[in-house]
Amino acid sequence: MMPARARPSDVLDQLIQSIAHLLPRGVSCHNPSVYEDTIAAIATAPGEAGIGVVRLSGPLSTDIGRRMFRPSSPRRVFRSHHLYHGAVVDGEAVLDEVLFACMRAPHSYTAEDVVEFQGHGGTRPLEGILHLALRHGARLAGPGEFTLRAFLNGRLDLAQAEAVADVIKARSDASLRLAVNQLSGRLSAAVQDARGRVLGLLAQLQANIDFSEDDVPPPASEPLRQEMCAARATLTQLLRAADAGILYRQGARVAITGRPNAGKSSLLNALLRTNRAIVTPVAGTTRDTIEESISLDGLPVVLVDTAGITNTADVVEAIGVARSREAIGTADLVLHIFDAALGWQPEDAALWAEVPAATPKLLVANKSDLPPLPAACSAPAPSQEPRPVLRTSATTGQGLGELEAAMRCTLVASAATAVDDILVNNLRHKQLLEDALRHLADAERALSSSLPADFICIDLRAALSALGAITGEDVTEGLLDEIFGRFCIGK
Amino acid sequence: MMPARARPSDVLDQLIQSIAHLLPRGVSCHNPSVYEDTIAAIATAPGEAGIGVVRLSGPLSTDIGRRMFRPSSPRRVFRSHHLYHGAVVDGEAVLDEVLFACMRAPHSYTAEDVVEFQGHGGTRPLEGILHLALRHGARLAGPGEFTLRAFLNGRLDLAQAEAVADVIKARSDASLRLAVNQLSGRLSAAVQDARGRVLGLLAQLQANIDFSEDDVPPPASEPLRQEMCAARATLTQLLRAADAGILYRQGARVAITGRPNAGKSSLLNALLRTNRAIVTPVAGTTRDTIEESISLDGLPVVLVDTAGITNTADVVEAIGVARSREAIGTADLVLHIFDAALGWQPEDAALWAEVPAATPKLLVANKSDLPPLPAACSAPAPSQEPRPVLRTSATTGQGLGELEAAMRCTLVASAATAVDDILVNNLRHKQLLEDALRHLADAERALSSSLPADFICIDLRAALSALGAITGEDVTEGLLDEIFGRFCIGK
Repeated sequence: MMPARARPSDVLDQLIQSIAHLLPRGVSCHNPSVYEDTIAAIATAPGEAGIGVVRLSGPLSTDIGRRMFRPSSPRRVFRSHHLYHGAVVDGEAVLDEVLFACMRAPHSYTAEDVVEFQGHGGTRPLEGILHLALRHGARLAGPGEFTLRAFLNGRLDLAQAEAVADVIKARSDASLRLAVNQLSGRLSAAVQDARGRVLGLLAQLQANIDFSEDDVPPPASEPLRQEMCAARATLTQLLRAADAGILYRQGARVAITGRPNAGKSSLLNALLRTNRAIVTPVAGTTRDTIEESISLDGLPVVLVDTAGITNTADVVEAIGVARSREAIGTADLVLHIFDAALGWQPEDAALWAEVPAATPKLLVANKSDLPPLPAACSAPAPSQEPRPVLRTSATTGQGLGELEAAMRCTLVASAATAVDDILVNNLRHKQLLEDALRHLADAERALSSSLPADFICIDLRAALSALGAITGEDVTEGLLDEIFGRFCIGK
Repeated sequence: MMPARARPSDVLDQLIQSIAHLLPRGVSCHNPSVYEDTIAAIATAPGEAGIGVVRLSGPLSTDIGRRMFRPSSPRRVFRSHHLYHGAVVDGEAVLDEVLFACMRAPHSYTAEDVVEFQGHGGTRPLEGILHLALRHGARLAGPGEFTLRAFLNGRLDLAQAEAVADVIKARSDASLRLAVNQLSGRLSAAVQDARGRVLGLLAQLQANIDFSEDDVPPPASEPLRQEMCAARATLTQLLRAADAGILYRQGARVAITGRPNAGKSSLLNALLRTNRAIVTPVAGTTRDTIEESISLDGLPVVLVDTAGITNTADVVEAIGVARSREAIGTADLVLHIFDAALGWQPEDAALWAEVPAATPKLLVANKSDLPPLPAACSAPAPSQEPRPVLRTSATTGQGLGELEAAMRCTLVASAATAVDDILVNNLRHKQLLEDALRHLADAERALSSSLPADFICIDLRAALSALGAITGEDVTEGLLDEIFGRFCIGK
């Protein structure tokens, strides 16, 4: 038997061995570059602009950069993170006037040696610089490959790397704030907190299994249960506002239904006008439904005007109706607009019946600035609907603020969560957190039922694996390809 | 009378007075910032990308930049031209993770204090940074305003500033090289050389006029003439390749005509295939004519397929024919394709007659890999046309190289000018050089005719003014507005 003093380190070694597959995938910050090749790409958006940037990353980047760059005043040494003025030259030919910067590993975006050329923002000069870099030995970067390297080199974890794409694609100030928070590592810290607890639990139980014949006492059940509880509380807290977070990131689709002349279009315009500055046409707008983007206090919303659901006379109209039905079927919220002066009409009831029962809906009595017509139907909105009727006037603007608040409230569940309290904004993360939570509950049940430690460990390992898939400690090539493949080239 | 020693400086003063309106517009390099306000803009192209840049220029830029930036490691001093990592913050809220750089006057793009934020290349983060800068006291920059400041602050002359836009908009490697050459000041140097000679002439003649009663001897006529000759030679040399330069910058339009089935489309495709990499769809393509861009050894060319000129039966077709005629009327070159196997047909003759006499044209006998059909018309191409018929085969690729060479040769006049010898690529510059040349010739004639020095001076001043309008010493607000208004915002 080995001396007692040696035991703890043995235990640790064996423990590490037994959970090695759960640790980061062989890459640590101490080995800043795992790549031997150097990648290059145009990092700015295509188009004509004042400035464009070509970026290189990898062990050869400084070398390639220096061969391409002729500084305005001759120099031998290029300091890290310093901007030098000069020209990109191909032999004697000048390709462009540029600012040049080297950022030495590990103090760069990728934690590798990075070189940037800031040239004029046209296609020709930037492609000229890129092609020259390729001729000097760089390789064209794939989508998201700079960020992938930042992740694999340990500068960002996976959740942070995913946040980079969310920052770029953010559609409102609130979604930007969520993404920046995630990029700063707030989600990662919470997940790592839970992960640390689970790892600790696993270490205790594993040691007990491996050395059950030795002098390691079995861990007391109550502290284990409390620790599991704490981990679960962290995850539950994270999940609390996840739906709101996902909505902020992805945006919501709101379908507007109603009879012709109920004022759908003028209400749409009224809602757009109040947010005129950030109205953007949504790509892929179909011909027969009008889509416009607004931001409801930071929540990106696409309003879909579903004209054409009433007439089903001919074949062409039928396509329009089918599209409108589809828009209603996929909406996160349906606004049914009816004419307050006319009152609730049979067609309104028919349209209302079209909306799937599970879809949240709001009833809007528009034109409420007008007196009711003598012939107005006095039947109220459907009695089985507990939601109050919102009274608006697109003409006077009356009730618009209330409508927006009601839409936002209905969409972002009931909890009026402050944006800065939301840490999860990604369906992948939400599902993994739910998985981890389920496995933790299983582990707790196994513990309560006094099942053998092995059983508990299986559940804990599954929880650990789910958490590790969020921050990237436990991911497959396929998942990385999928995540980074969605990035643009140059990021 | 003042002492004789004082005279030269008096002469100089008075001379400067008399030509003050010809000197740079009150702005010199010694006063690097003529502006009191600070401008800001997104300097990279809109769209989703890895990197985007927000740029500020003006006396407050460093101050505003520092208030918006929180470095990762706290610091009080920000060195010029150094990249600092950190965050853009609005109070406590983090807008984006960025690299931050100050470039102190006059070592910056505008010769003013410049600040750049390199953030993530999405609309939201960049607009967030820009709006924060505006809230801190910057003003949104107008189109080209950074470059306008570089010009007015004396860092670039007008020809160089115009070259900035040409670099960004360059459509081929050759047009990029022309623009970069102009940006480097090669055209400016040549123009300034001529301008210096004219200024010298003017000084001599003016001194003679102002002090004709004093002891300044009248300048000898022959040295004056020689100096005028030298100035003219410089300008003539510049103008020699100006048409080629303008063509490189603007690109050429080549209309393809011919009967249906002569192989127009397959020839178009064959020409495109050889340049597949840089084929780009031209914006504003009309429905009935197909436009594709190719580069003929650096010369950007838009090929216009003028389908539909034969049938004039109905009204709709007539519009197509009118468009085709317009394409032929505005083309820099017309390629008439006929079927070599069929020979020259009456319809060919009719189409050929449509091409304006002054338009350069090339006759292409396509399908020349096929044997002539028995019924082939043996009539040759129009006899009055001295140009040889080019024999091609879109199928085998035969004759395509010769066709491209012939197109390029016909477009870029006869002189096979090397791109690096071309200094003028801008119609404005060409016309001003021609003006200057005409005024110099007038001055020379006035000198030969022994007209009074006043007369000669009028012509010299006009020449000087034309040259000054190229480099910007003598320009109107209106011209500056026109030139910089064509720039993008952020440049």
